[in-house]
Amino acid sequence: MKDPLKIGLAGLGTVGVGVVKILQHHSDLISKRAGRPIQIIAISARDQGKDRGVDLSGYEWVKNFSTMSNHNGLDLVVEMIGGAEGAVKDFVYSSIKNNKHVVTANKALLAHHGADLAQLASDNAVSVGYEAAIAGGIPIVKTLREGLAANNITGVFGILNGTCNYILTEMRETGRDFEDVLKEAQDKGYAEADPTFDVDGIDAAHKLTLLTALGFGVKPDFGALSITGIRDVSADDIKFAADMGYKIKLLGIAKRSGDKILQRMEPCLVKKTSAIGNVEGVFNAVCVKGDFVNEVLNVGPGAGEGPTASAIVADIIDIARGNVPPMFGVDAKTLQHASWADANDIQSACYLHLEVKDQSGVIADITSVLKNHNVSINKFIQPGFNDNGTESIVMITHKGQYKDILAGMIALEKLDSILTKPKHLRVEEI
Amino acid sequence: MKDPLKIGLAGLGTVGVGVVKILQHHSDLISKRAGRPIQIIAISARDQGKDRGVDLSGYEWVKNFSTMSNHNGLDLVVEMIGGAEGAVKDFVYSSIKNNKHVVTANKALLAHHGADLAQLASDNAVSVGYEAAIAGGIPIVKTLREGLAANNITGVFGILNGTCNYILTEMRETGRDFEDVLKEAQDKGYAEADPTFDVDGIDAAHKLTLLTALGFGVKPDFGALSITGIRDVSADDIKFAADMGYKIKLLGIAKRSGDKILQRMEPCLVKKTSAIGNVEGVFNAVCVKGDFVNEVLNVGPGAGEGPTASAIVADIIDIARGNVPPMFGVDAKTLQHASWADANDIQSACYLHLEVKDQSGVIADITSVLKNHNVSINKFIQPGFNDNGTESIVMITHKGQYKDILAGMIALEKLDSILTKPKHLRVEEI
Repeated sequence: MKDPLKIGLAGLGTVGVGVVKILQHHSDLISKRAGRPIQIIAISARDQGKDRGVDLSGYEWVKNFSTMSNHNGLDLVVEMIGGAEGAVKDFVYSSIKNNKHVVTANKALLAHHGADLAQLASDNAVSVGYEAAIAGGIPIVKTLREGLAANNITGVFGILNGTCNYILTEMRETGRDFEDVLKEAQDKGYAEADPTFDVDGIDAAHKLTLLTALGFGVKPDFGALSITGIRDVSADDIKFAADMGYKIKLLGIAKRSGDKILQRMEPCLVKKTSAIGNVEGVFNAVCVKGDFVNEVLNVGPGAGEGPTASAIVADIIDIARGNVPPMFGVDAKTLQHASWADANDIQSACYLHLEVKDQSGVIADITSVLKNHNVSINKFIQPGFNDNGTESIVMITHKGQYKDILAGMIALEKLDSILTKPKHLRVEEI
Repeated sequence: MKDPLKIGLAGLGTVGVGVVKILQHHSDLISKRAGRPIQIIAISARDQGKDRGVDLSGYEWVKNFSTMSNHNGLDLVVEMIGGAEGAVKDFVYSSIKNNKHVVTANKALLAHHGADLAQLASDNAVSVGYEAAIAGGIPIVKTLREGLAANNITGVFGILNGTCNYILTEMRETGRDFEDVLKEAQDKGYAEADPTFDVDGIDAAHKLTLLTALGFGVKPDFGALSITGIRDVSADDIKFAADMGYKIKLLGIAKRSGDKILQRMEPCLVKKTSAIGNVEGVFNAVCVKGDFVNEVLNVGPGAGEGPTASAIVADIIDIARGNVPPMFGVDAKTLQHASWADANDIQSACYLHLEVKDQSGVIADITSVLKNHNVSINKFIQPGFNDNGTESIVMITHKGQYKDILAGMIALEKLDSILTKPKHLRVEEI
């Protein structure tokens, strides 16, 4: 058997402890699968004294994780601290420059500096593994980069944040409002005290940026991404969508649109009966469409100690075996600056939700405005009066130019009979 | 860029033509992903003159595919002829002995000779790629062997035959009988003129044998597999199961049972609301359970020109990149002879379907017999009288020893009031 792969772990939170557990419990199995032993040599975390429930006595304790980057006894470092800038970024960069492989779950770092890191890794002939950075335990990097490598990828669609999917599922199943369910999720530990990163779509958008790069061979470009979170999705929206055969999901979408790429993170309506519509609770899912394979859907746990550690150790095994594909599937030098599609050019059906005065002629006014903006109505429901005496009107439009919908929304807002800012969500056909 | 990988194609049926199309249409993309060009050098098929809709003029036509195994200009041969024995087997063996990589969709060959081939490939330092042999376009070999390599796999569950899944879906949706739907599937080209291989579970069982080997690091052992197809599933069974919240799916099951492995191919009841229960029509799905990842479900097209060719070309790209993991995930020498669990020891709930005389005391007799065999009833329905005046009784038992159910079935058959052989199907919790 070959020499052991010697690794250092920077960060011993939940995921770091999970990695230690796997490597301790499955050391024989993993040696067999990797063709060589994988040895933890050094570890680093903020608090050395803390009881983490695993035996760390055999490992060298490194006070400052940064110094692992030039530790002579390490072939690979696992970065499990997080953060896109500062000391963590410096650590990853210097580790690569010192010819160490890096495995990380740090989606923010990669979403912001991925292209740069891919080039640096290539220059130093090392691998940067990031299976754990997207969709937790689901091996989607491997699926997209290797398993579907024969295809021209035409679209990638993902439920990429378990917290949001849990909240939307709970809202639908119980009819409760966003704030109420969020509070409960926080109490249960499914959502952070500051939920911004999750519910505003930032975390999922980091992941989408990487999926887009992998699928289309382009540089990750977080800044180019249009991001809408789930704060404005109401219990009513979810109910009305359900009445018309849809569920609302926070979707990461990257798809070809002519010679451009459309990349969006937004709550969308998907058919209730669709495979992705059936993914509920904290699960993640990624649907990949390719010109030869048609489509493949992967569903699994998007976070948590075991699943995330499973993905990290899979990367370590791959590197131990010598499988080091280019970070985004093609040589870093050939990664393109994507040409991003303009939202105005999207062809889409939309869900519209209007609050109106209960007065005659309202519907005629609305449909006339929409018609003037080339928006044609496919389904229409009037769920009835609200507690405050106003009335909701809900529609699904026929597929059309998104810019027409946006213009129609602005025109509707000017009508006297429209009481609140008209709300719309796109319908995504997957 | 490195030297091209030179390949020969044996067999130019649907899948072979798909492979040619991908390599022609995506030659630049694939060169980028593989880090080197992939060149078709030689091709072979029965009929040279046939128009296959692709330009084959640039390739060397080989009259007898067997001779490709010692063709000096080839690094890799793709076997797309099929059959577990004879000339095809010899071709694969001699190609490996002549240090050529092999990529194949031939599940029968691998299910019967997999362990032997793994050793031969290892001895000759070549790879045998078989992503296309299991679940078509779904990259399940890659997911299981590499993506989930950090886990002790505890179970693999699959819908592995699209024809069967299509037939069962149609039967449920239309209420029609097996024979009727099979006939239609044959007319539409979804089922072969001789459907034995599909509907009797043989094709799916070949695939399961390989999944078991991959998941548990054991020698593929087709002979050890208990196989039941879908011929005896009636429209009534499907309806009764649905009435109680279940769907019937032909499932490949491989799971740990103590220190043994349980491996079965059989129609089972799964919860209507389960992820695998929602996989309908010609789709395939594989659910993998691991001790750290919990579970991952992959869904996609299980057959067809594009998906199967996608999987074959993914293997070719992997080999071109130098990623050659051991065939079943661990060194061939360490593959174990599995210790197979005895069906008697399965703990399972069961669906029972009895046809009885309409007379008093029948239910008391039946429940008494079952009680004497330690079979306890969880759900019970009497769907009503059949056209011939008999009555159906349908039950789901509590979870118990499978051998008790089997003994109970034999005892029930002896009752005067039971008119036909009692039918049972296991309920699988996934």
